[in-house]
Amino acid sequence: MRRVAIIGVGMTKFGEHWERGYRDLVVEAGVKAIEDAGISGEKIDAGFVGTMASGRLIGQEHVGALIADYMGLNPIPVTRVEGACASGGIALRQAYTAVASGVADIVVAGGVEKMTDLDTSGVSDALGGAGDQEWELFMGATFPGLYALMARRHMLEYGTTEEMLAAVAVKNHKHGAKNPYAQYQNEITIETVLKSKIVADPLKVFDCSPITDGAAGVILAPLDIAYSYTKKPIEIVASAQASDTISLSARKSLTEIAATRIAAQKAYKDAKVTPKDIDVVEVHDCFTIAEIMAIEDLGFFKKGEGGKASLEGRTTFGGDVVVNTSGGLKAAGHPVGATGIKQAVEITWQLRGQAEGRQVKDAEYGLSHNVGGSGATAVVHIYKKAY
Amino acid sequence: MRRVAIIGVGMTKFGEHWERGYRDLVVEAGVKAIEDAGISGEKIDAGFVGTMASGRLIGQEHVGALIADYMGLNPIPVTRVEGACASGGIALRQAYTAVASGVADIVVAGGVEKMTDLDTSGVSDALGGAGDQEWELFMGATFPGLYALMARRHMLEYGTTEEMLAAVAVKNHKHGAKNPYAQYQNEITIETVLKSKIVADPLKVFDCSPITDGAAGVILAPLDIAYSYTKKPIEIVASAQASDTISLSARKSLTEIAATRIAAQKAYKDAKVTPKDIDVVEVHDCFTIAEIMAIEDLGFFKKGEGGKASLEGRTTFGGDVVVNTSGGLKAAGHPVGATGIKQAVEITWQLRGQAEGRQVKDAEYGLSHNVGGSGATAVVHIYKKAY
Repeated sequence: MRRVAIIGVGMTKFGEHWERGYRDLVVEAGVKAIEDAGISGEKIDAGFVGTMASGRLIGQEHVGALIADYMGLNPIPVTRVEGACASGGIALRQAYTAVASGVADIVVAGGVEKMTDLDTSGVSDALGGAGDQEWELFMGATFPGLYALMARRHMLEYGTTEEMLAAVAVKNHKHGAKNPYAQYQNEITIETVLKSKIVADPLKVFDCSPITDGAAGVILAPLDIAYSYTKKPIEIVASAQASDTISLSARKSLTEIAATRIAAQKAYKDAKVTPKDIDVVEVHDCFTIAEIMAIEDLGFFKKGEGGKASLEGRTTFGGDVVVNTSGGLKAAGHPVGATGIKQAVEITWQLRGQAEGRQVKDAEYGLSHNVGGSGATAVVHIYKKAY
Repeated sequence: MRRVAIIGVGMTKFGEHWERGYRDLVVEAGVKAIEDAGISGEKIDAGFVGTMASGRLIGQEHVGALIADYMGLNPIPVTRVEGACASGGIALRQAYTAVASGVADIVVAGGVEKMTDLDTSGVSDALGGAGDQEWELFMGATFPGLYALMARRHMLEYGTTEEMLAAVAVKNHKHGAKNPYAQYQNEITIETVLKSKIVADPLKVFDCSPITDGAAGVILAPLDIAYSYTKKPIEIVASAQASDTISLSARKSLTEIAATRIAAQKAYKDAKVTPKDIDVVEVHDCFTIAEIMAIEDLGFFKKGEGGKASLEGRTTFGGDVVVNTSGGLKAAGHPVGATGIKQAVEITWQLRGQAEGRQVKDAEYGLSHNVGGSGATAVVHIYKKAY
């Protein structure tokens, strides 16, 4: 297995792109990544793209071929992968594997979702496909409802409070306010969150990530040739994925995402690091409770202490580890398939020292954590400054 | 890169499974493949599954995790890939790559589609997502309409006749009649086809593949350890994929699928064989014209001579090469994501000498050809008897 590095990254602003379509977003992010890598498209051997629900959101499947076409990459294979909200992370992992194994040299990994072509109810239906259609969604459970169950249980078992949940949103908006690519660049207060409308008790509007359009792309190459393209290659030192039951009802615990724990353990082992070595993290905060569980399952805090740590400011600048400098899904937005790739873009900027206004000083190791559905899929990548 | 072999195969009967759901079909095919390989599920390191439109057909995305769960494979990663009707072939290719590269040892590749939960109009809409939504489907083109354009052009340029198209369907029904897994096991005549209702002139009902439920699975292993599981490993000696424009209007020619030609050339080169070495072929006959173009683009017949060859019986037993012993998409059925894997199952049975009633004598080399949409994706695999 060869060592693999990121040599180029690019993304669109995340937000409501009423005036632009799926393919416009793809091309903008893709061209930016190619330009950032300083390569020509002909150098690219293969592509992987994460998109969750283009069939239901825009009536378009077969997006691998569509993207190969619109990016001018024909006839190379571009493969769509789908694992709900983890689609982007899975695309990155397939691209990593293709380069690591020697199957391909220069590979692009992308993620994209165009969500605002449908109304909120249509989008909710489409996103519902990430859960267990037969045993959850068909019975009336919504996605916020599933995470609300986890939140209630976390509150019961560990004394987590609604204020602690709110602290996650406040921190992520504070970070997002410094990120020009974020959907929401405004700060909020604990009160904003607590006074916002209830979506699924105890989760309120400001506990939930929004509906977003956006795309992101990264270019990978073997580390040894990466230096001929960039002075600042970022090595991917681990790529791990794990699965859990698709239905919450079959889980042993509602207060952890076991797939996260298993994928993280493998990733730390492969990268030969511990959580203490990580300087900057992007976690999958589709809901505030998800970030609290993530920072526990990833080993940054003990199980049950994630809420308190968030309230005490231990997950922002000056704390134990800086979580979601991009603003996370909450403030940067969550164009489902793009999120896992956006995380890699943000970590790359951080490790290159290019995250202006939100830079974690001397960041050497980064980690990204991308979850599908209510935790049936988790993908963890660890990155290292390689210059 | 390691040599890769198929050590187990399994599939459901293809047809209208009103009484069964997506996950029932997956489990039946998966368990059959695992039993056929004589392994336990714990031996499996990873999985790839091809499903085209589960979001629109059954409201379920995230099917990789669903399948990991229902097959009892947690926590290993199972990744869904989608490339329209080529989803199964792409899943096989990802699984092949995982084993060849050493990323994993025992890998399952599956394909599944549950189509009969929607009415025909709903299914047509979902399948339309394989084409160019913005420039073709939105403008009113249907999938039979796109292939009808290719058929008309082929008739104009090469004198292909409706009778020649019909001959493909007649031959595939004749083969399907001997395949207990086929959706239609009845023979038809040229007249049946010519007198059937027009769908998109010149294509009639009997020129078109049907709506089908079904699933199929294969288990791959490195060739050197394959012998410890089976006395009859079937080696995959080439796996190639190519892309073309998603919209027909952007193609240089309407009478060839360039992606097929490019993928086939690469596959023949990698396998170090020529079309003359191939004994048995499964091609993607979503419409009769598609089989005629395929046998030309794959190099079995010169461009323009595929129709005549079909009418003259050169693509069945006793001819130049036996095409679609399974009955093809036309008679065996076309559960979209499952088709590419079913082709691998059929070729495996042929090369093992287990295709009772439709066995190609002394078959040594096989080829499968899986197309996405109107040809924007093509995947070609070449197989060799390895015992």
